[in-house]
Amino acid sequence: MTEKERNEYEQLKEVPVDSQQIRAGRILDMRVDRVQVYNGSLATRELVRHLGAVCIAPVTKDGRIVLERQYRYPVDRVLTELPAGKLDFKDEDPLEAAKRELREETGFRASDWVFLGDFYPAAAYSDEHIRMYLARGLVKGERDLDPDENINVFTLPLAEAVDAVMRAEIPDAKTQLAILKAAEYLKREKRRDGE
Amino acid sequence: MTEKERNEYEQLKEVPVDSQQIRAGRILDMRVDRVQVYNGSLATRELVRHLGAVCIAPVTKDGRIVLERQYRYPVDRVLTELPAGKLDFKDEDPLEAAKRELREETGFRASDWVFLGDFYPAAAYSDEHIRMYLARGLVKGERDLDPDENINVFTLPLAEAVDAVMRAEIPDAKTQLAILKAAEYLKREKRRDGE
Repeated sequence: MTEKERNEYEQLKEVPVDSQQIRAGRILDMRVDRVQVYNGSLATRELVRHLGAVCIAPVTKDGRIVLERQYRYPVDRVLTELPAGKLDFKDEDPLEAAKRELREETGFRASDWVFLGDFYPAAAYSDEHIRMYLARGLVKGERDLDPDENINVFTLPLAEAVDAVMRAEIPDAKTQLAILKAAEYLKREKRRDGE
Repeated sequence: MTEKERNEYEQLKEVPVDSQQIRAGRILDMRVDRVQVYNGSLATRELVRHLGAVCIAPVTKDGRIVLERQYRYPVDRVLTELPAGKLDFKDEDPLEAAKRELREETGFRASDWVFLGDFYPAAAYSDEHIRMYLARGLVKGERDLDPDENINVFTLPLAEAVDAVMRAEIPDAKTQLAILKAAEYLKREKRRDGE
């Protein structure tokens, strides 16, 4: 943090005065905290705590991206998503988690990994933190799904995936974001290599 | 839904057999549901229900994007974000909500609104649904913040915002996504108009 950012943080930060665990779940730690806000008054913060996750944009050497179709209960829809998954434990190496999830869900192993950046999907009420990776040098092997996972894998030219994002046909946030970032990364890499 | 999508949905869908409200919050409805999965076995789904939200990418006529710095308690950080906010009630017209949030948080009114698509920020455990808008034709007026809101507004050339997203300096998901989509939309619009 710069000194300016430190001052801003000190000015805006909220200090917990009470934290109540509503439910210790398998995936979500549901909490309601009381906090003191910048002007000294008290406020309630409803939130969930989450181990964090990884999301992989696997691109084949002929420029196709590997996607999945997966049912998501909270929205009662089958969504087009990139391979992704939770960390197995706090502070797990996210790259190791990405390698595992890619192999388990799609069967692919990749020889070339690029960090595409991270994000908070819902910072207003969740501390979930997702890291994105571009995976290239793909070699196909066997899948290894969890017993309650049912995932259909397919591929699409990356340019078509970008068009689908622009037409709002891919409603999953991490998938939209990693497709756009992977496409922009590859465009910048090509431009750089062409110079 | 196409017939193929309907068949896929019928094959993959999970059917709730029990739904328990853990807490009816002001922002989050925290729930734990029991569901029957595709192979007939039972599974637990921890989730939060949310009214939905809007996110606005306001771009000035000299190509600058309007951003905010806001503290987010769950991640204990000040984040760079686009103007955004929850719907006031279920089925509120999202465009009306976007106009309200833009005015309240930044003071700007916009004459030109383009729908940039929607997304689920965390479909694995939240039904939150966010609609994104590009707002142009900006006219500055007075802000109208909620008493517990403390938001610093600033602007940045859109191209610099895209570079900041690519350098992973903007960790908020909706902000990354709407910046990349707004930039891609404007590029395609320019190309179309140039033809």
